Amino acid sequence: MEKLKKEIKSKRNFLCIGLDSDIDKLPTTFKRYKNPVFEFNKAVVEATQHLCVSYKLNTAFYESRGPQGWEDLERTAQIIPPNLFTIADAKRGDIGNTAAQYAKAFFEQMSFDSLTVNPYMGLDTLDPYLAYDDKVVIVLALTSNKGSAHFEMLPSDEQPLYEHVLKKVSEHAPTDSIQFVVGATHPEALKGIRKIVPDNFLLVPGVGAQGGDLKAVYANGHNSDTGLLVNVSRGIIFAGNDSKDPIREIVKAAESYAAEMKALMSDGQ
Amino acid sequence: MEKLKKEIKSKRNFLCIGLDSDIDKLPTTFKRYKNPVFEFNKAVVEATQHLCVSYKLNTAFYESRGPQGWEDLERTAQIIPPNLFTIADAKRGDIGNTAAQYAKAFFEQMSFDSLTVNPYMGLDTLDPYLAYDDKVVIVLALTSNKGSAHFEMLPSDEQPLYEHVLKKVSEHAPTDSIQFVVGATHPEALKGIRKIVPDNFLLVPGVGAQGGDLKAVYANGHNSDTGLLVNVSRGIIFAGNDSKDPIREIVKAAESYAAEMKALMSDGQ
Repeated sequence: MEKLKKEIKSKRNFLCIGLDSDIDKLPTTFKRYKNPVFEFNKAVVEATQHLCVSYKLNTAFYESRGPQGWEDLERTAQIIPPNLFTIADAKRGDIGNTAAQYAKAFFEQMSFDSLTVNPYMGLDTLDPYLAYDDKVVIVLALTSNKGSAHFEMLPSDEQPLYEHVLKKVSEHAPTDSIQFVVGATHPEALKGIRKIVPDNFLLVPGVGAQGGDLKAVYANGHNSDTGLLVNVSRGIIFAGNDSKDPIREIVKAAESYAAEMKALMSDGQ
Repeated sequence: MEKLKKEIKSKRNFLCIGLDSDIDKLPTTFKRYKNPVFEFNKAVVEATQHLCVSYKLNTAFYESRGPQGWEDLERTAQIIPPNLFTIADAKRGDIGNTAAQYAKAFFEQMSFDSLTVNPYMGLDTLDPYLAYDDKVVIVLALTSNKGSAHFEMLPSDEQPLYEHVLKKVSEHAPTDSIQFVVGATHPEALKGIRKIVPDNFLLVPGVGAQGGDLKAVYANGHNSDTGLLVNVSRGIIFAGNDSKDPIREIVKAAESYAAEMKALMSDGQ
């Protein structure tokens, strides 16, 4: 977490680039490679690493291609510079002896800094990840999709389920070991969330393709450490698909988000 | 689902064997192979396929070994005879475009009959799996671990969260497309669960190593189709670890569970 806070301070942005590198949607120039996904990720990381503080890899886009995809996931994790905060967006969640195997997969076999985890099965399912002192567990709270209304917002004792998750999980583990996922499509909820978890970092997906508002997210969600990681996936990595020089367009898109964040951080402090 | 019901009728048991094949816990005789996990799984499947109706592979035990583990997962899925119901116990859960990738991974890249899914993020996260007519989505309801008390049992409108999950999910999709996970450690809850979902199959882990009571599970949970798949993992696959002939002990353990189930089915009907 220290390195993440340092990067945010020095780069003056809180941009996480999501490498949801769907092989069917890659710019055509990359399709000629033997490993198109890895070559694309490598090019994106080389071109954008000065513009962001974190990379998030959604494991689904790798698992869908079997062992080759899994290898691309591992190799991509290896080439991300160590000053950048890496997230395995795997949304895992299982009982202790199984969770320990997932921890081994993402923290040992690969060396991601953090893993997204689903809290449904309870606090004991988080413990095998928390046993790694230098790693961060990112717990789903209020997600960006419409279905968040079905269970995450179900009230119990006049508080929605996701607020119980925030409360119980933040009481269960040190602040620097836990981040929470809060979708950018719920900017109004961020004020209440900050009352429950003033100090935890929030990973915020849903800006870009899903329509979330960055300005509102920052206004309602930032704290004195900034406390936000805003993820953009499709809005950056596929920004150059109609262009002859896709990487140039990807850099432009990342620059635009980074600049917007810098402006917000300058206004806000 | 038809093949599963047929197998249960003809074999007169409802045993699912969990191939949680932790490489560190395999019987020593298998450690000499180049691919110990695959060779072990192959031997177990060959020796026990007449004694069970289903195999469940918990993906964590394969992911923890990287691309080689993922390959063992794929190869094991391929050698399970087609009359047996296969479960990818992956507990995935993510928004639409991501869930579609997981569906591709487990239903196309591999051809599992079913996938376990976490409902926290809502009903829309189930739809990409439900789009496969011939596949079954197995949704977590009330799990076997202690942490099930933290959120799954949280009351909303005087009903625990897991009952809302049962209700909303069963209303959302055809009965034969959905099973629910209910831990064997909550046999008393099964009566209430059967009132909400009388017809759906229940996948019941937690017998064996976790201490659930098979007799109580059957008494409170079966329906006219039997409607139960009881999974045993460690209690069968590691039953022969202290023996010179581990496969013989594995077969004995599976026979014992199968016989107990047969007796329950004969008494109960």
